[in-house]
Amino acid sequence: MSVTAISRQFHLASRPGGAPALENFKLVERELDAPSEGQIIVRNLWLSVDPYMRGRMVDRSSYIPPFGIDEPMDGAAVGIVEASKDEKFAVGDTVSHFAGWRDLALIEARSATRIDSAAPPQSYLGPLGIPGLAAYAGLLSIGEPKAGETVFVSAAAGAVGAVVAQIARIKGCRVIGSTGSEDKARWLTDEAGIDAVINYRQVNDLSAALAKAAPQGVDVYFDNVGGDHLEAAINAANDFARFPLCGMIAQYNGEPSGPRNIYRAIEKRIKLQGFIVTDHLGLWSDFQRDVGQWISEGKVKWTETVVDGFENAPQAFVDLFSGKNTGKMLVRLADAEDSRA
Amino acid sequence: MSVTAISRQFHLASRPGGAPALENFKLVERELDAPSEGQIIVRNLWLSVDPYMRGRMVDRSSYIPPFGIDEPMDGAAVGIVEASKDEKFAVGDTVSHFAGWRDLALIEARSATRIDSAAPPQSYLGPLGIPGLAAYAGLLSIGEPKAGETVFVSAAAGAVGAVVAQIARIKGCRVIGSTGSEDKARWLTDEAGIDAVINYRQVNDLSAALAKAAPQGVDVYFDNVGGDHLEAAINAANDFARFPLCGMIAQYNGEPSGPRNIYRAIEKRIKLQGFIVTDHLGLWSDFQRDVGQWISEGKVKWTETVVDGFENAPQAFVDLFSGKNTGKMLVRLADAEDSRA
Repeated sequence: MSVTAISRQFHLASRPGGAPALENFKLVERELDAPSEGQIIVRNLWLSVDPYMRGRMVDRSSYIPPFGIDEPMDGAAVGIVEASKDEKFAVGDTVSHFAGWRDLALIEARSATRIDSAAPPQSYLGPLGIPGLAAYAGLLSIGEPKAGETVFVSAAAGAVGAVVAQIARIKGCRVIGSTGSEDKARWLTDEAGIDAVINYRQVNDLSAALAKAAPQGVDVYFDNVGGDHLEAAINAANDFARFPLCGMIAQYNGEPSGPRNIYRAIEKRIKLQGFIVTDHLGLWSDFQRDVGQWISEGKVKWTETVVDGFENAPQAFVDLFSGKNTGKMLVRLADAEDSRA
Repeated sequence: MSVTAISRQFHLASRPGGAPALENFKLVERELDAPSEGQIIVRNLWLSVDPYMRGRMVDRSSYIPPFGIDEPMDGAAVGIVEASKDEKFAVGDTVSHFAGWRDLALIEARSATRIDSAAPPQSYLGPLGIPGLAAYAGLLSIGEPKAGETVFVSAAAGAVGAVVAQIARIKGCRVIGSTGSEDKARWLTDEAGIDAVINYRQVNDLSAALAKAAPQGVDVYFDNVGGDHLEAAINAANDFARFPLCGMIAQYNGEPSGPRNIYRAIEKRIKLQGFIVTDHLGLWSDFQRDVGQWISEGKVKWTETVVDGFENAPQAFVDLFSGKNTGKMLVRLADAEDSRA
């Protein structure tokens, strides 16, 4: 590499009021220093864009600091080591790390994880990455599904939801998923093998649709959506139901609304519990072992929506909120295209 | 007693649309049979009226069957055995049981519990009865308060709330209560010894008032109210806060509303868990031992609002929803009045 490596990176230009828009992002070029001892330079192949990043675009304290205005954004990414000042990484290694939203990243080596696996590298941004761990930890630790129970998952064709749905099937549950298009519905039934799908855009009364799809009631509701989905799940819940709360994408951009039937959580003894994936990093090796095996056995499948070109990352992010993705939304950089099989 | 004992009893005349009203009740006289083997007749001294009974006035399946139209209502009561066909009970025994809303009750002996205690008998409808167990079980099993943490309890001067507040103090917590009158606020600080009180009728912004009263945030919120209290508690919650959901009196009569900030339960990893006291009957003997001791040591105090006269039971119930009671709302029957010390 040249001595004056240039990193193209997206900075936060402004904070969104409602839905995020392209104007909230600014593409900036920065000269990178040469790596110091313990640092590596990574050329990114794949970038992750995720709904939770919407929360980081507003200036409010949370479990993760907000993005700063005119500062680089970050997020999960996979790339190839291009320069290394750390003995644990060699040039050419594939690594996952958290310096996304840029094409070339100078990072501390200890923040990177080498990928040694037959699985495609971008799966470490999906079922074998943070979305997969969110599904695994939330469903198993909080949802505690038992064989024969009914599991309802919203955004079931999304990066997290699809893994939730398939793990629930593996655990012997009846699985109902909601999604917003017929294509996604087909993938869920034909590929992921779940028992029933609700296309929420085609039903007037989500509670009625869920009651019909879950005649025995819902024991676990894995919430990625909030809003009317959460209300419908409370209505359909059996006594002692467990609701892992993973995301509420319906609440992020507009006027938030609460579940008006929350009082029914008392009579039904529902447990609603929010969680953040980074609280469950202790499950990482169990998760890699189990989901890796399920993938190799064909029991966990995934799908991804690939947007080509680094400069299209903001559009890919914006499109998350209108449900344009099936499965994980990924941005593929030119170098990944060049290296396609 | 005469062979043809007459029981005066309240039947459900109609189901309330909004707030319950006197017209929903009908006073009826019924001739009682003589007790069969295993039955007793109890002359009630004290009747309990409780907010949860509102739920039983509507025709909807729940954890407890709804009251039937033109059928007798029931609920907790304390009385004196007047006739016994069961060897475990003698005439003159004081018992607590569930055939309330009537002056004279013919019941299965196995559904009654003899009271042998120096505590006043009506305390078995309050701190030593179901409200006390709700406080004990919900706070300790779900809330899991640790010394030094902050506990917020709504309806803190109510039958459940006052016990929650004082147990939380005993456990070394800082305790903030909300209530709706200055008299109740005074009782909470001067008698129950809690750290801070919010009179919700005197604040415009409950979230701001709670933030001020709980500068270190809220670790446990014991919900008796729902609505704006639940929203304020979510706003004030610390990471990993626990919310035992015991009742939502603000939601029972009007148009229910959900906590619009429920999505913050994710980033804060809040656990909201509904519970029903009868799921926790296994704690009964621990509860009697602990709360009995705390009462005898003066660490748990209680207050009660007494309405005299059986015929005033519906009014006492209706008054619950405008907060006319401080502490447990009780109906005292003529025989209890006659037997006052």
